[in-house]
Formats: sequence, C-alpha cells, structure tokens
Amino acid sequence: MTPAELHQDAIIIDGLIIAKWNRELFEDMRKGGLTAASCTVSVWEGFQATINNIADTNKLMRDNADLVMPVLTTADIHKAKELNKTGIILNFQNAHAFEDQLGYVEVFKKLGVGIVQMCYNTQNLVGTGCYERDGGLSGFGREVVAEMNRVGVMCDLSHVGSKTSEEVILESKKPVCYSHCLPSGLKEHPRNKSDEELKFIADHGGFVGVTMFAPFLKNGIDSTIDDYAEAIEYVMNIVGEDAIGIGTDFTQGHDQQFFEWLTHDKGYARRLTRFGKIVNPLGIRTVGEFPNLTETLIQRGMSEAQVRKIMGENWVRVLKDVWGE
Amino acid sequence: MTPAELHQDAIIIDGLIIAKWNRELFEDMRKGGLTAASCTVSVWEGFQATINNIADTNKLMRDNADLVMPVLTTADIHKAKELNKTGIILNFQNAHAFEDQLGYVEVFKKLGVGIVQMCYNTQNLVGTGCYERDGGLSGFGREVVAEMNRVGVMCDLSHVGSKTSEEVILESKKPVCYSHCLPSGLKEHPRNKSDEELKFIADHGGFVGVTMFAPFLKNGIDSTIDDYAEAIEYVMNIVGEDAIGIGTDFTQGHDQQFFEWLTHDKGYARRLTRFGKIVNPLGIRTVGEFPNLTETLIQRGMSEAQVRKIMGENWVRVLKDVWGE
Repeated sequence: MTPAELHQDAIIIDGLIIAKWNRELFEDMRKGGLTAASCTVSVWEGFQATINNIADTNKLMRDNADLVMPVLTTADIHKAKELNKTGIILNFQNAHAFEDQLGYVEVFKKLGVGIVQMCYNTQNLVGTGCYERDGGLSGFGREVVAEMNRVGVMCDLSHVGSKTSEEVILESKKPVCYSHCLPSGLKEHPRNKSDEELKFIADHGGFVGVTMFAPFLKNGIDSTIDDYAEAIEYVMNIVGEDAIGIGTDFTQGHDQQFFEWLTHDKGYARRLTRFGKIVNPLGIRTVGEFPNLTETLIQRGMSEAQVRKIMGENWVRVLKDVWGE
Repeated sequence: MTPAELHQDAIIIDGLIIAKWNRELFEDMRKGGLTAASCTVSVWEGFQATINNIADTNKLMRDNADLVMPVLTTADIHKAKELNKTGIILNFQNAHAFEDQLGYVEVFKKLGVGIVQMCYNTQNLVGTGCYERDGGLSGFGREVVAEMNRVGVMCDLSHVGSKTSEEVILESKKPVCYSHCLPSGLKEHPRNKSDEELKFIADHGGFVGVTMFAPFLKNGIDSTIDDYAEAIEYVMNIVGEDAIGIGTDFTQGHDQQFFEWLTHDKGYARRLTRFGKIVNPLGIRTVGEFPNLTETLIQRGMSEAQVRKIMGENWVRVLKDVWGE
C-alpha cells in the first residue's frame, strides 16, 4: 500500500481545528482526507454566545451536508468514513461557556460538544490556564469534571496550567487529553508540556494530540513537516504508540483581528502573548495537505500500523472510552 | 448627652446588611436610627439577575421614599441625616456579577453600587473566597481592582481568602475593607481574621467593619451585645480607632431557603458550610435595637468621640476617600 493509499484507507482525525468555518474549509477537509475533525466553537464566549456559535455551525453543516456531518458518537465517525464525508466534533477551548451552571454541561453534550478544555490561558471558575500563576482545580471545577465524566465530555488540558492539569488528571475517572500540544523537550514555552507532564498524563490513561503550531515548534515559522514529525516521534517515545494522535490547531482563514481576540484575556482585556507571524510548517500549510503527514511518518520509518493509530485510530478508541458509544 | 441622645445625634452606619428588603425593614432601620446602610444586592447572581435585583430595589426605595433614599456619594449620607431618612448604599458580596466585563464595574457604580466584595467563599474570575484553597488574585482580578479604583468602588474582602485578600490590599491604590468580620483571636473560624490580617489591612490604609454574626462569635448563639462589644474593642486595639466601623450582617426576614442558597457554591452546587441556628446576640437581635450598641460601648468605657467614629464617622471618611465625593 502506498502512503497515499494508506491515507485514503485509514481513519484520519484532527483533534483540534480552530479555522474559519465555511464551505471552502470543508472542501479542504475532504481534499485532506479527514474522517473527522474536532472544531472549536467557544473560547472566550459565555453561554448564550456559544449557543449562537453552535446554531450557526449547525446551519453551516446542514448547508454543506454533501461534505460534512455532525459527530455525536464514534459510530458517527465510522459512518462519516463510509459516506466519504468529514465528521464534525464540536469542542470548547474554555469551560467558561458552562458559566456557573453544572447543568449546562449536559445541555452542550446533547448539542454535540464532545471535548472541553477546562481553561483557556487564564483563570476561570474551574481552574487556571497556562499563561498565569495557577492555583489548581477549584471545588466547583471538581464538580464540573464529575459532570463531564457522567455525561461523557472529554477534559482537554492543552492551554491549562500545570497544577490544574495534574489535578484534573487525578480527579477524572475517564481519560483526559492534551488535544493539541508540543513537547518542551524540543522547545521551552509556557504552552508546551514537559517530559514529566507527558508521562504523567499517559501513566494515568490519558491522551496526547500533537500540534504543529509554528510558534511552539523548535524552528518556529521556518519549520517544515519534518519538524512536526519529529515532535510526534518525540511524544510517542514518551507516551507510547497508543496514547498519541494529531491535533493540528489549524487556524486557516482567520484574520489578524481574530488573533488579537485570542491573545487578550476575555478577548479584550490585557494582552497575554504575542504569536508574531503565523505560518504553518512547509508541507502542511493547509488542511488539504494532510496526506503529506501520513507520507512523512511512513518515510521516516514508522510502521503502517503505527501510522494508522496516530492518524486516527487512537482518537476513536479514547473518545469511545469517554463518550461510551 | 445620654447614650440615647448621642445615638440620635451621631451618624450611624451599618456597613453590611443582607436582610429581606421590605418596608418593615426600612421602618426598623428608622427605629434603629440608621443614617445609612450598605445593602447586599448580589451574591451568586450574574449580571442580568443583579440588574433585576437593583431594579426591584429602586422601586422599593421609591415606594418607601418617606423612610429611605439612595446613596451615591457621602454628601447623600449627610443629606439622609438631615432628612431623617436612612440612606441606602448598594453592595455586592461577590464580583461574579461583573462577569468577564471590566466595563460592568462602571455601569454598576452609576447604579449606586459603592462596595463590592471580590469573592464570596469560593473561586471566581478575580480570586478565591475563604472556604477553599486560595490561589490568590488573578491577572483579570488586578484589572478589576484597577477599574474599581478608577470609578470609585470600594474593594471588600470579608469572605475572601487570605492570599487573595493580601494581594488586593497591596494592589489597590484606594483603601479596601473587611466590611463585616470578626477576629479569630476570639474564635477560630475560616471566616474570621487573624490579628496579623487585621493589622496588615490597617497598616495599608484599609478599614475593618465588625460583624456580630453569632456563629462566628465566641459564645455562638448564646452571645449577647457585650460579646459584640468585646469583639469591637478587640479589633480597635489592633487597627486603631480610626479604621474601624460596624458591619452587622443582619439577615432579618430571610427564611431557611435563603440560607441554603447562601451556603452552597453558586447557590445550588456543593455545600460549603452549615451555620446551624442563627440567633443574633441578645440586645441587638433586630436592626431596631441599634441604639443599644451605642449605649453598650459607652457603658463599657469608650469615649463619646470614639463611639461617634465607630458608629459611623469612620465609614463616611473612608467611603469619601474611595468614592472621591
């Protein structure tokens, strides 16, 4: 089987995309052979604004039903593969949209939200993000974790502070993930995870999606798809070949204003970070180039079985563990 | 001047009442000779529910304009004294109603909210309350303090955790307060403040209102007004006679359901504490018995000048420092 055939045959999952949602992107997802993608519908928004985002996304999926379909269960992912469509999993990058209501967790689950990051960069009612001093998981946060466990929403810790992350990993009765992170062993950065952190989540049944966000890669915006593959190999050596997947963090289609919103607390308050210029690694600049990743991993010596796991099978297994179906 | 005449002549301010707002209470405030009272209009409520509370309170004040009047400045307090009415200062016991919007601070200030407690018992976007592990003041919390300083809203720390309190005291450029607290030197309790904490706030230009909430007093529900006076004297010995006032925490008129709401995180989630039976100290069981406090302090040996300061003048001075008018 050639790498292209393997990519065509395999289940391909991107565990984190925060691109501009439109038909052009969905077309690129088909070109890239994505079986499913986890798409961010909330970062700084509160409850109602997030509901509005979901309503907009529902309409967009309906209008592009030839390309995409909603995913509520892992059976839906297999169905998408069968129908040659891309399944859309909804995610939040911030539990802020739950506001102070535990009951909102189930409401959002029923609307298709399968993965929720506990904090985005700063403190919320649950814990603290990775760009400020982290006091750990709050009492309310423990209740949120229990409710996410109960209704089947995966806890994501990518942008979460180290202490809160550790406590969520210990608190959760279901596997949790860093859906999109890079190892600080290759580049020191507040958003990157240390070898110890990667080992800790894996030792506790958790999962790691590897991102390719250039500012956090060793070679920055001069990175190529080989730098991305190197990071994947680095993480696999720590967490093992069953606890790893892909979470690109594609931001395709967004303008400067969007990044200004992302990089300020609450979307408008103090500045938290500056990304500088964002250019994805050469070879995987767009979602449509996804097949190059399969090819690169094979060329660098991974087995077909390993590539199938990393490119999608592992995500399906861990999501089934969390979602229960 | 007899104690009764002194009480009649002095400015009497209660820095914290969370009673059931109705005409009966306003009549009792007049009976108690209150020149002004700081009344809680938000605890667990978010922005809109708090606005609704304020709208209700506005109507109630309008309907009882023979007894009460709104206070936006300290000139309004003097006006209330002149008119023989009770001035109503609005307060929050939780910055939660600011939600994630710095702009809401000024909105509420214009609506009469002059004192806001940064946290109520648990973690919010600003910091952490006194009933859970406290990670300190958040980055957003620092922005909230700066905005409260700018528009003239006093930071209250009564139910705030020790670390967050210390950091707010250091961060604020205007005096901050414990509007209603008791010394842990007389009874150890998570809500009570140590001698060091009382000294720290006073050393940094802050203010302490002394409460009489029976569960936090040495003799619990068997306490009398003398236990309250003892606590006032204890605090005065630490903070001095210019940094101390009254903040009773009267809950008059509320039913069991209200206390259930108060003692659960967010008003409904996990239980944080149990007060048990609540009986105010004998001699000051109702707002109408306020004159007994003036009499008790005089009888125990305080000077008339000290009593005037404690019963109201100090509050007026510190509020003018914060409000600027």
